[in-house]
Amino acid sequence: MIKIAIIGASGYTGGELIRFLENHPHVEIVGVSSRQHVGKPVYKVHPNLRGSNLIFEDLNPNSIDADLVFTATPHGTSMKMVPALLKNGSKVIDLSGDYRFKDVSTYEKWYGLDHESPLNAVYGLPEIYREDIKKADLIANPGCFPTGAILATMPLSKEKIVDRIIIDSKTGVSGGGISPSESFHFPNISDNINPYKIINHRHMPEIQQELNEFSKVKVSFTPHLVPVIRGILTTSHSFSNEIDTNLNSGKLLKIYEKQYKDEPFVKVLELGEIPRLSSVRGSNFAHIGGFEIDETGRIVIISAIDNLVKGASGQAIHNMNLMFKFKEDEGIDNYGLHP
Amino acid sequence: MIKIAIIGASGYTGGELIRFLENHPHVEIVGVSSRQHVGKPVYKVHPNLRGSNLIFEDLNPNSIDADLVFTATPHGTSMKMVPALLKNGSKVIDLSGDYRFKDVSTYEKWYGLDHESPLNAVYGLPEIYREDIKKADLIANPGCFPTGAILATMPLSKEKIVDRIIIDSKTGVSGGGISPSESFHFPNISDNINPYKIINHRHMPEIQQELNEFSKVKVSFTPHLVPVIRGILTTSHSFSNEIDTNLNSGKLLKIYEKQYKDEPFVKVLELGEIPRLSSVRGSNFAHIGGFEIDETGRIVIISAIDNLVKGASGQAIHNMNLMFKFKEDEGIDNYGLHP
Amino acid sequence: MIKIAIIGASGYTGGELIRFLENHPHVEIVGVSSRQHVGKPVYKVHPNLRGSNLIFEDLNPNSIDADLVFTATPHGTSMKMVPALLKNGSKVIDLSGDYRFKDVSTYEKWYGLDHESPLNAVYGLPEIYREDIKKADLIANPGCFPTGAILATMPLSKEKIVDRIIIDSKTGVSGGGISPSESFHFPNISDNINPYKIINHRHMPEIQQELNEFSKVKVSFTPHLVPVIRGILTTSHSFSNEIDTNLNSGKLLKIYEKQYKDEPFVKVLELGEIPRLSSVRGSNFAHIGGFEIDETGRIVIISAIDNLVKGASGQAIHNMNLMFKFKEDEGIDNYGLHP
Amino acid sequence: MIKIAIIGASGYTGGELIRFLENHPHVEIVGVSSRQHVGKPVYKVHPNLRGSNLIFEDLNPNSIDADLVFTATPHGTSMKMVPALLKNGSKVIDLSGDYRFKDVSTYEKWYGLDHESPLNAVYGLPEIYREDIKKADLIANPGCFPTGAILATMPLSKEKIVDRIIIDSKTGVSGGGISPSESFHFPNISDNINPYKIINHRHMPEIQQELNEFSKVKVSFTPHLVPVIRGILTTSHSFSNEIDTNLNSGKLLKIYEKQYKDEPFVKVLELGEIPRLSSVRGSNFAHIGGFEIDETGRIVIISAIDNLVKGASGQAIHNMNLMFKFKEDEGIDNYGLHP
Repeated sequence: MIKIAIIGASGYTGGELIRFLENHPHVEIVGVSSRQHVGKPVYKVHPNLRGSNLIFEDLNPNSIDADLVFTATPHGTSMKMVPALLKNGSKVIDLSGDYRFKDVSTYEKWYGLDHESPLNAVYGLPEIYREDIKKADLIANPGCFPTGAILATMPLSKEKIVDRIIIDSKTGVSGGGISPSESFHFPNISDNINPYKIINHRHMPEIQQELNEFSKVKVSFTPHLVPVIRGILTTSHSFSNEIDTNLNSGKLLKIYEKQYKDEPFVKVLELGEIPRLSSVRGSNFAHIGGFEIDETGRIVIISAIDNLVKGASGQAIHNMNLMFKFKEDEGIDNYGLHP
Repeated sequence: MIKIAIIGASGYTGGELIRFLENHPHVEIVGVSSRQHVGKPVYKVHPNLRGSNLIFEDLNPNSIDADLVFTATPHGTSMKMVPALLKNGSKVIDLSGDYRFKDVSTYEKWYGLDHESPLNAVYGLPEIYREDIKKADLIANPGCFPTGAILATMPLSKEKIVDRIIIDSKTGVSGGGISPSESFHFPNISDNINPYKIINHRHMPEIQQELNEFSKVKVSFTPHLVPVIRGILTTSHSFSNEIDTNLNSGKLLKIYEKQYKDEPFVKVLELGEIPRLSSVRGSNFAHIGGFEIDETGRIVIISAIDNLVKGASGQAIHNMNLMFKFKEDEGIDNYGLHP
Repeated sequence: MIKIAIIGASGYTGGELIRFLENHPHVEIVGVSSRQHVGKPVYKVHPNLRGSNLIFEDLNPNSIDADLVFTATPHGTSMKMVPALLKNGSKVIDLSGDYRFKDVSTYEKWYGLDHESPLNAVYGLPEIYREDIKKADLIANPGCFPTGAILATMPLSKEKIVDRIIIDSKTGVSGGGISPSESFHFPNISDNINPYKIINHRHMPEIQQELNEFSKVKVSFTPHLVPVIRGILTTSHSFSNEIDTNLNSGKLLKIYEKQYKDEPFVKVLELGEIPRLSSVRGSNFAHIGGFEIDETGRIVIISAIDNLVKGASGQAIHNMNLMFKFKEDEGIDNYGLHP
Repeated sequence: MIKIAIIGASGYTGGELIRFLENHPHVEIVGVSSRQHVGKPVYKVHPNLRGSNLIFEDLNPNSIDADLVFTATPHGTSMKMVPALLKNGSKVIDLSGDYRFKDVSTYEKWYGLDHESPLNAVYGLPEIYREDIKKADLIANPGCFPTGAILATMPLSKEKIVDRIIIDSKTGVSGGGISPSESFHFPNISDNINPYKIINHRHMPEIQQELNEFSKVKVSFTPHLVPVIRGILTTSHSFSNEIDTNLNSGKLLKIYEKQYKDEPFVKVLELGEIPRLSSVRGSNFAHIGGFEIDETGRIVIISAIDNLVKGASGQAIHNMNLMFKFKEDEGIDNYGLHP
């Protein structure tokens, strides 16, 4: 039984951490922090959690007594807390963007912030960094779009099949967080599609960083808000200038099957099957499908994840399970909700 | 470890049974039946269940070797199988309407069918019939609308506070089943509200039967299809011709708290809180709130359930847990998905 | 050609006024006012109006040169402007609640405001007050819920068929206005149903006032937010303590057909047809149907309107057409959008 | 006043033709044909059209007395009727795919049909073929996806700026027609994104044909079903192997402004504005925006149309207005519905 604290527990990712962790057999939540809601039961903010006895506190990062702290705090806030948490003896899984970049200048450019406390962190995508995660004290939990995009295209980069990847992503609105705004006002989202940050979303350099670990590919990224609560559907369009005329769908499928055959949360679909959000809604699974090549040599690979689970809190718990040698899928092995 | 079979496993309630039962520690699914899909993996029909190894078969009711059989079959089909299943030594939880009525003539009138095999069954609403359920061989699992409506209004009937109850229900489309039809065509449902069977839905006599066990109340019922996948929000408007001027919200709340204080799946909200579907989405919880009385003496009580879980498969598993002396919430204690 | 000004033109009802008035052959929009957006083209706020040359101004009510001013301003703001506008020689159609009540104390009780400038206004529901509207200088445009509720139940009150009416309304989110808030945050509305102000919404006394003009009926009202952009579906449950056993659906239908036979915007459906929002989406039509009576004597009448059109701006233009002797349906005779 | 007949009037595009044509000052609808619904008032199928007196007939193509016939019939059906209609003296606007291809073998390959009656038709995209349309007897009304895609990318091909174009389209479900199916079952669409025919949709060769009229570009196309009733949002990702480093957003915008400056229905947005479906919902407008170029040289242009209006029936009426020398926007000049 390890002791867990969650800082920033009143946001959607905080709520999801509690949803899973309260049913996890090997952890005890010793504190959930939210300055805005101190003294309030968590179910007043997360109405699905009625039944939980947790109450929001204002935890001091210098004195939290926990084996592991999840920081589900905004970008720029995590960096102010993580050094103290580590010094205090806790391991940390940070769900913000603060520790995702190998080159701090990339972070500073895309996030528009000076980094106050750069540290070595492990990028918490188990499908690439499993062994490093097991030994890490600080995990930078991947962004939601990068999780879907990297899982969909990493084998193409690894096998040097393509030199250009266009990521066209469609995200549910929960990705924008729990705070209302004009962009997330129901009449602006429902029955509508809203592209945004069409060339300059800060998840682009994160995708680029990870794909370029394997080979040099040009990465382009355009996200769209869709009238969906949860989920990211990533459509990747990939090419090479030098078309390999021997490549076909069957070979592509084999590459993906081999890459992910031991992964508990990545499901490679059969030829002809297409990922869709409802297959993974509420679960930690990623579905990957497509594997088609058109007349122009474009390869289409599609992935579906739940942005709040595999794209955030579920993946964070997967990382926790690895760090503390629990069963990998402990507490996060539930199926999704279809319909 | 008990052996379970599911007949009619390719519908939505069948899919939900599998979703929960595959994670239940005390059961083993020995067969899932669907004539239409024989030989097909269940994940081809229920894409969220990818990872399951189950394959649809065409099970013969006369020779199923199971401790318990769930019949998630259409009305009129269950009655053809249940006698054989019982004779064969299995207990049965029937999710159709075939065994819900104490008076078979009510069934025959409202379902337009001759009943081929009337049997004594226990109405599987644990909040009323817990002790009978524990001893039963045949459970008639309640209808989705009745579950929401009875939980919301039974205390009013029991305490003889009202003599007339109007049930105005709003249901998600999954209640209509997995088969497409004009009524469930996306462009006809989205951004729309569709009332139907506004005075003569067959769940009305089921609600009436149960509420009249406690006192004589007139029951009216009107359902509406709303652009929601899962969930039933029931708004009850109740009155008495003789208004008790001493009654107030606080007293109403106390009555409900007392009624449901030991129930694992019924959550009585505080004054000022209102049930909503997202609080129970995907879970077996029922939320009940409102407890307000207007100037005319009308009492408003509102309940929210997931029609496929508390309104069908989750409740069926709750019944199973009672019949086999498992922990009541075993396998169905997960929280809902909000957002 | 009459001159029109719109105060409060940056809200949804302001946008709808412009949408219809720019295609109206007998009016010229001489000014659209919005303090917040002075100098901005209207299409920056109402993106569907791209092509319009109108620009938001900050109009002074004391000096607007217009034959008619629409005040699409919040409750409490209209009363500060209307006297000046009238004094200045304009006719006024007020879309707020400020002038809807015959008894100013009812307004003050339910709106929690002191009324600074009570005036005689005509309640702008053409189906009741057509002749008064033609002669009026000040119209109090009806509330959205009252429009749907009164059209659905007024004949029952007029014919003294019932003594109690329960209004269970389902409204699209645009009724809550253009400003974002937690209540209208997409993840809180989508795939959800949210009842609110379940006994004390301020549209209740407005409905009550109008229905009691015909006979003494008790009125109860409960609204629900549904995941729909536009539209109000009103389900009315009505009954009498003394049941008229001669009453039946056919007679009810005849009463409604007679009541509305000359109305350009009220469509009485046939027996067996049910109103739905998509039939009236974007149009000024009200559809009324149901006309069924259940075993307990409850009468069900259902209406569907677009809350922003028949429930607000379209009805306001209908009133304008009556006041200025234009064709009644001029500029607002378009059909709705189904699908 | 010209006489109009509509064959295939019971589908969505048929309904939209009636919605607009009944308010068009220069046309009279002399017949609406639907074999399935002979004798039924149109409002029984298109409930928004209540108020119309039209009744479905079974019109014989050999004897229709009309100046213009719209064939809103399925692919493969139009080719059986069009020769007779033309011989009979009517002009024809065909909304199917039967006459869209310059090379009949492309049609036969992609539609899997032998073409029974190849004829010279004008491709009815007024933004390219306005002058030809004015003189035509037979118009092949463009497909919905091609309309959005060609308007978004044609200037890039014309100016030879790119050599490869990826079209990633998101379509509302009404594009799939009025008939229910598993693909359009509400629980399969809502809160979901469904890619389909990810490399081989038959609108691809149609887009290719038109773009290659201007220069040789490789075209790729992937459509997605989104939980939206109406609308197509097209995201185009385009690039050249030889990057023009002088190109920038301002220059791109100028090219588009010049191309579309006299077009009544194409609105070129300003830099920083993004098209969205709600801006054009129910209207014949196309909005085009984006004009951004990322670090890799990828150009992003986005268009939004209503698939049933600009993508089908509205464009057909635009063509009619051109053919009969009416005002170009007569009857289709209404704004869209936002919200």
